[in-house]
Formats: sequence, structure tokens, C-alpha cells
Amino acid sequence: MRLDLGYDGTEFSGWARQPSRRTVCGVLEDTMSMVLREDVVLTVAGRTDAGVHATGQVAHVDLPDSVDVPGLPRRLARALPADVRVFSARVVPAAFDARFSALRRHYEYRVTDSPFGAHPLRRLDTLAWPRALDVDAMNAAAELLLGEHDFCAFCKRREGATTIRELQRLSLERGEDGVVTAFVSADAFCHSMVRSLIGALLAVGEGRKGVEWPASLLSLSGRASGVSVAPAHGLSLVRVDFPGDGELAARAEVTRRVRTLS
Amino acid sequence: MRLDLGYDGTEFSGWARQPSRRTVCGVLEDTMSMVLREDVVLTVAGRTDAGVHATGQVAHVDLPDSVDVPGLPRRLARALPADVRVFSARVVPAAFDARFSALRRHYEYRVTDSPFGAHPLRRLDTLAWPRALDVDAMNAAAELLLGEHDFCAFCKRREGATTIRELQRLSLERGEDGVVTAFVSADAFCHSMVRSLIGALLAVGEGRKGVEWPASLLSLSGRASGVSVAPAHGLSLVRVDFPGDGELAARAEVTRRVRTLS
Repeated sequence: MRLDLGYDGTEFSGWARQPSRRTVCGVLEDTMSMVLREDVVLTVAGRTDAGVHATGQVAHVDLPDSVDVPGLPRRLARALPADVRVFSARVVPAAFDARFSALRRHYEYRVTDSPFGAHPLRRLDTLAWPRALDVDAMNAAAELLLGEHDFCAFCKRREGATTIRELQRLSLERGEDGVVTAFVSADAFCHSMVRSLIGALLAVGEGRKGVEWPASLLSLSGRASGVSVAPAHGLSLVRVDFPGDGELAARAEVTRRVRTLS
Repeated sequence: MRLDLGYDGTEFSGWARQPSRRTVCGVLEDTMSMVLREDVVLTVAGRTDAGVHATGQVAHVDLPDSVDVPGLPRRLARALPADVRVFSARVVPAAFDARFSALRRHYEYRVTDSPFGAHPLRRLDTLAWPRALDVDAMNAAAELLLGEHDFCAFCKRREGATTIRELQRLSLERGEDGVVTAFVSADAFCHSMVRSLIGALLAVGEGRKGVEWPASLLSLSGRASGVSVAPAHGLSLVRVDFPGDGELAARAEVTRRVRTLS
């Protein structure tokens, strides 16, 4: 079963379960286990860090056929705290894996450079930046980062994880309300990559670094010491792309045949 | 001086100062008095109730010429709590009065009837309604309420205050995200009028009352007992219309001449 869900990350220590911390995975698994009287183990598309939000997170879970799938969001809404919600639940091909089937992750980062800071009703998901930002310079710097690169300069190293990623979109737009939104898409991201990219672009935007600086770091073989990790609360996971159900079924068939042959 | 401001009403006991309560006016006046080392007394366009938000509230205050007006939003942002912000400050003609010069107040009410309730990041300003809403029926009922009427059926009585108002807009739209927004505009509103109108329309929207019912209450000579006041947190004051500076100056000139003649 596929779950589409969202959360306000403010009061969560991120997605991944940790002992004696309030995590999105922990709250969801515990609540679903209680409501469904089944052990629930979730697999997620994007393991967001502490304080990061999601409007388009995707997870999957294996449950007995007896569960009323379309009715699940309403049942869970009665039991979940208000800062996490399951928007929809649906049966998907057995080959669907929220983590390994995901083709692309899309994030957005909201930052305002207005003199008054973040709007009170959007302060939970908007960073207030104290200096004026040059969005054109940030976009010029962003364009130089697109494509497949080793992004180790922008990643916190994790044992065994690759830092070679294809950055498919990195562009910024200033909305009518003055808020700058960065749109960031890749096949996958290594740890703290989005917030490090934003941190580097903020340095360009306020004129502290040149337009070529972020891309120049791609030649480093380790994390760049000059790159700040932008605060978590400006960041939201907004969408994850998956193959269609037909393609998933075809993939599963290929896997089955390969297994039969071997 | 005119101030444009906004707040998240969640943690405020409304605009108006009350002893030992946290109010928007109290927090703003106290903070401004501290920052400017002047006694500050604010006059406001819309005295919002406890829990009601504002994205386009307007106030005025008389201050010495020595105050750096354009720099005020940044100075205040450093001292104010994050749930209230002054977006802009500007010098206006002496005739400008945030309350008495206001021509029109615009409110918006956000309500969702999705099975999962309010989106976590918009739960502060969105009412979760547990039953499906028929927006067409609500709009048909709303149209019958437009124009100048005695809205006493929808008002909490206040000594000496008129309940005759001109309702200029009352229309609802369902957005792409499924959230229904009601747009409500009038020259002015009596106490609890917007939330009572929304309460009546919600009864129509869920099919509990007919399309003609809200307008039929206009013939009552007192508050209608069957009308619920919709919860405060769905409501935001979004804009206040004023005459242009030229017209304000002309009005002041007329007042001055009348005084000179008498």
C-alpha cells in the first residue's frame, strides 16, 4: 500500500526512528499499529532531517487485505497529532517500493529577505534572511551546478553512500509576496545536500561569494568547509516521482523471470 | 503614521488590550514604546477577535518627526515575537484614521472538508470540517445575503452599535488543493458577523439547511439562535481599503474650512 503524506517538521526530530525522540516515522508507525492492530513498518522515499517539512512525502507498507484502504486517511486523522497527516492511501503493485522505485525527489526552500522577516503565518516554513538577496546571481550560480557531479563538497559523509548525483533542477523565483522559493530536483540527494546547496547560494545572493564559487567546489574531494548548511525549517519535500503502475508491474515481471531462470 | 501589519492570531486574545491577557495591541504598543522610547497608542482598522489572524491589518499612530519611519519594520522585527510583524510604515496625511477613514474591510475564511483534515503546515489558519461541503449551494445562499441589510441575526449585540451593514462580497471558491476559501467584504462588520455568516453557510454546505435559510434570518429583529459562530482560526483579515492620500487631504481641508466658518 502506498501512502501520500505531509508534516510540519517543527516538532519532529526528522523522519527516521530514534530512541526517545519524537520522529515522523515513530509517530506514524505507532499510531497506525494502534489503529489497525497490526505491526506497521514504513519504508519512505525521503528520510528528511530534523525540522524539515513535507507536503509530498511517500511511504509504503504491507498490510493484510482486510484493511479498508481508501478509508484510512480519515481514520488516521482522528488518531494522529495535527502536525502529520496521511493524505491518501492506495493499493499499488507489489513491486512498488517507496525508496527504491522513486525516480526523482523534488524539494522547495523558502527564504525571505524582507526587512520585517517571515510572515507570521508562514514563519514555520520560511527562513528570514537578514540581508538582501540577488536572485539573478543565485540563478546564475545554480545553473553551473546542474547535471551529474560528485557532490561530496555539499554532503555530510555517510559510510558507503555515493555522493554522485544528477541535479536536474536548481532554480529560484521571487514570488509576488517577495518570498524567494528555490526549486531543487534530483534522482536522489545525499545527506544535507539540499541545505548545503542553498547555503552556498545564499552566500552568492548576498554578495559574499561570486557566481562561480559554488560550482568551483565540485572539484573538491571532500566536504567544503566554507559552505553553511541552511536552516532546516525553510525546506520541504514537495513531490516524489515514481514509474506508472504498468511499468512497475512490467519491472516486477522481469524480476520474476530472471529469478525463474536463475 | 500608517502601519501595515499581520499576525498569527493563535496565541493572542484578539486585538484589543485586556488586562493580563496577551493581545496584539498590547504586544505592539509595549514593544513600540520600548523601542521608540515614546508612549505609543495604536488605532486599528479591524478589532479582530481572539484567534483570528491578519495578513492585511492597518493601524495608525502619532509619533514625533524624529522617528525613522521606513526603518521601523526592521527595527521592530528584532524586538517583536515571531507571531506579529509590521510589514511597512509610512507617513500619511494627518486626516488618515485607520478606523474612521477605512472604506471597506476584506476577510477570508479557509475551510477544508478533506477526509484527512487540515494540511499540517496550514492547520493554524484552516478549519477542518468533518463533512463534505457543497460549494455551489453555499454560493447560492451567499448571493441572497448581499447588499445593505440589518444583519442583527448574525451579530453579537453591542451597546449602541448599528447592525446595518452593506455586504459587498460573499463568495466561495474551492482551490486546487481542495481548500474552500470564502471571500467576505463589507463597509464594516458588526461583532462576530463574518464567523456567523460562515457558520450559516457551513450548515447549507453540508445539507443541514436549505439555500434560502441564511437570507430568511435577515427578517429577524435579534440574533438567530440557530446560527453557529464558525471557529476563529479559519478567519483572516486580509485587506482594508482607504481613500487615496489626495482625497484624504481634500477631506481634511473641507473639515478645516467648516471649522473656520463656524
